[in-house]
Amino acid sequence: MDNKIINKILKQDHQHIWHPAAQMKDYETFPPILVQRAKGPFLYDAKGKPVIDAISSWWCKSLGHSHPRLKEAAIKQINSFEHIITANVTHLPLIELSNRLSSIVPGLDKVFYCDNGSTAVEVAMKMSLQCHAQTGNPGKNQFMALKNGYHGETIMTLAAGDLGLYNSPFVSILPAIDHLGPVPYVRGQDDPLFMDAGSVWPKIKDSLDKKVESLAAVLFEPIVQGAGGMLIYSPDLLKRLRKWANENNVHLIADEIMTGMGRTGYSLASEYADIIPDFVLLSKGLTGGWIPMAVTLTSTAVYDVFYDDYNSKKGFMHSNTYCGNALACAVAVEALDIYEEEKIFERVQKHGPGLKERMSRIAKKTGLLTNIRGIGFMAAADLCDENNRPFEKGLRMGYQVYQEAVKIGALLRPLGDTIYFLPPLNTPLHVLDELEEITLKAIKKVINKRIL
Amino acid sequence: MDNKIINKILKQDHQHIWHPAAQMKDYETFPPILVQRAKGPFLYDAKGKPVIDAISSWWCKSLGHSHPRLKEAAIKQINSFEHIITANVTHLPLIELSNRLSSIVPGLDKVFYCDNGSTAVEVAMKMSLQCHAQTGNPGKNQFMALKNGYHGETIMTLAAGDLGLYNSPFVSILPAIDHLGPVPYVRGQDDPLFMDAGSVWPKIKDSLDKKVESLAAVLFEPIVQGAGGMLIYSPDLLKRLRKWANENNVHLIADEIMTGMGRTGYSLASEYADIIPDFVLLSKGLTGGWIPMAVTLTSTAVYDVFYDDYNSKKGFMHSNTYCGNALACAVAVEALDIYEEEKIFERVQKHGPGLKERMSRIAKKTGLLTNIRGIGFMAAADLCDENNRPFEKGLRMGYQVYQEAVKIGALLRPLGDTIYFLPPLNTPLHVLDELEEITLKAIKKVINKRIL
Repeated sequence: MDNKIINKILKQDHQHIWHPAAQMKDYETFPPILVQRAKGPFLYDAKGKPVIDAISSWWCKSLGHSHPRLKEAAIKQINSFEHIITANVTHLPLIELSNRLSSIVPGLDKVFYCDNGSTAVEVAMKMSLQCHAQTGNPGKNQFMALKNGYHGETIMTLAAGDLGLYNSPFVSILPAIDHLGPVPYVRGQDDPLFMDAGSVWPKIKDSLDKKVESLAAVLFEPIVQGAGGMLIYSPDLLKRLRKWANENNVHLIADEIMTGMGRTGYSLASEYADIIPDFVLLSKGLTGGWIPMAVTLTSTAVYDVFYDDYNSKKGFMHSNTYCGNALACAVAVEALDIYEEEKIFERVQKHGPGLKERMSRIAKKTGLLTNIRGIGFMAAADLCDENNRPFEKGLRMGYQVYQEAVKIGALLRPLGDTIYFLPPLNTPLHVLDELEEITLKAIKKVINKRIL
Repeated sequence: MDNKIINKILKQDHQHIWHPAAQMKDYETFPPILVQRAKGPFLYDAKGKPVIDAISSWWCKSLGHSHPRLKEAAIKQINSFEHIITANVTHLPLIELSNRLSSIVPGLDKVFYCDNGSTAVEVAMKMSLQCHAQTGNPGKNQFMALKNGYHGETIMTLAAGDLGLYNSPFVSILPAIDHLGPVPYVRGQDDPLFMDAGSVWPKIKDSLDKKVESLAAVLFEPIVQGAGGMLIYSPDLLKRLRKWANENNVHLIADEIMTGMGRTGYSLASEYADIIPDFVLLSKGLTGGWIPMAVTLTSTAVYDVFYDDYNSKKGFMHSNTYCGNALACAVAVEALDIYEEEKIFERVQKHGPGLKERMSRIAKKTGLLTNIRGIGFMAAADLCDENNRPFEKGLRMGYQVYQEAVKIGALLRPLGDTIYFLPPLNTPLHVLDELEEITLKAIKKVINKRIL
């Protein structure tokens, strides 16, 4: 496309599209990348220039773009049917996917479907509340979640989250949800405190104990807090939480939307803590980043509390029009096959440390990154000045790095001043080399500009 | 498939799938339809038997199943790319769809994307609240909605809704949202009171006036309340509401998720009232029932309140991973083309009355349906006994009619004892004849069983 056409198209974009999570004025001065095609770890812009999708398009494209097997599975399903209601109706891709998902977590063998992560979290919260009410504990109707967590964008999930960037405009109507902390952050598996949350537990236990009578469930992103800045914490916290919850009839809701499906090297990040939550939510990698879908996994024990004659009014009446979408199910089944057959999770275990090393090398070469951390196929670090101090937020250093990186050829999308890599799980190593190079250049460029 | 295999598959279904809006015990005695393919207005079960999709698979398959043009559009997009992030990135199907959607409602030319109806409603609520706060009215943070309305399944949208069936287990945590009434119900356009809400307005206005200081927005399903029982009300209420809202700096949120995209014969049901809401939500028919997608349309006036330098913190920070999904956009653009080129909405205007007549004929032949109503391609009536009295709810007469109809060959899915037709907008008339016949037989069968 020539520049005249590109500019015309981008003008239409700016006129009608309200992009997500944005100050739209930013788009005026720095237009969005106009993507024309995508393949593997690359987006290709309107000029045909490749841009590395270093964040898996918001952490969902675990198998990269246009995977030939996923394409084939999608087209095969389209040639049969694309979507049918799944209330009082069922279909083979739905049944096959449910069979598969029900074996991911031992004991969590019931699968409830919806369309996005926020809704899956709400499903778990609603199930927990109704479950307690139907087992004689109607007073158990409150939730707690970890400090600095993120659980979605609906009012209820914003309340469960603890990030002012997303929830501050709505504070006056957010339901009261207390946040547990301090969170026992670590740098990764090699951190000596990786398996020790002993120092923070007494304070957290104290907060839990105070709420126990009214507490239905505790929500957390297992091991990695994503939107909160890609921060890793000790699995030992979850071990202790599981024990306490068992003793106190409180559910655990594991929001594995980002961490699940191999991102940390296992089906679930909860496996690091060797716990079985009462509810597990999956979404981003579920369809290999193809089609909106999310699931809430739970146990027969929970399910049975709702199972009775219709007139008992114990059924779970939640529905989303497109839940159990056949196209999404067919692609998800194929994605699960690929994860398994191509040993994707093992690959993450093997090459994950290399990703963190790349971030360390950039830190060493620039002296402008601190708090290097990583687990599985996620590595992160915070921009800092020459004296290891954070930059003033108003400078938007992270955003500047994003701009420079895009120009050179990588879609980094820092969270504030946190630079992170979260590439497709099957990204070739030479592309990671390229990504390292581009990130290094982008950071240097921003800093040089600042000095000039 | 032979019965042995079907039973084996259905056993797996029952073992692992928690179906939506269900008492799962019902599935034990009456298994779901195992659909193997779908075409036009028909689902085909595992035996190849056609079942008329009389409710457009939860009101979304406006162009029926496996529409050849939608298939072609989907496959074409898959051959380019399927999904990319739409924050700081854009693509042609997204821009084209946004151009098209921005011209549906004069003045509502900004399009925000998400994955399901509940979320689209929350987006509008959040935008309204933040908009008021950023224009000097932080105290405007409450919502009102119509009595008997339905707006989704998240905690906030359940609170906006007014249906005990869905929200009663969660009442203890629902945010307080007052419901406006009485709603001026009518039977359809031929009802003498179709354009007169004068009798109910004083009471509604009084409730509104009392809340005006804290009121951010009023939510409604325009003209037809779907999940609340397919009840039609006078557009005059919306005219009066629009005037009052303009005078009092209150937003109107039109939930056109079911009513939009031609269901009532026009792009929006709001057109009956000749009003422009501040927010319009679309979803079900948007992709022709293919892929989860929902949009919140709003005005430049609202958008501009958020448009400022990044550090002003006025941006709207909502995001959903899969918003602006390319596959969904490509299919939606094609669906819009089909609606237009095949004059689908005009077809609805022409044949809508016939759908209601069919319901009337069944009523006449059985004497067991009352309150016959309809608009566009929706017709409904309530089961009643020979003395025109409603049946006891515990009898589940509607559910029994559903069971009989499925056996004969139609997927009716009554709302309680309300029987309704909401078929694909392009359903051939002879299929509607069949549907009438099947519904008649199913009702007769249930009643005969009752008498025996």
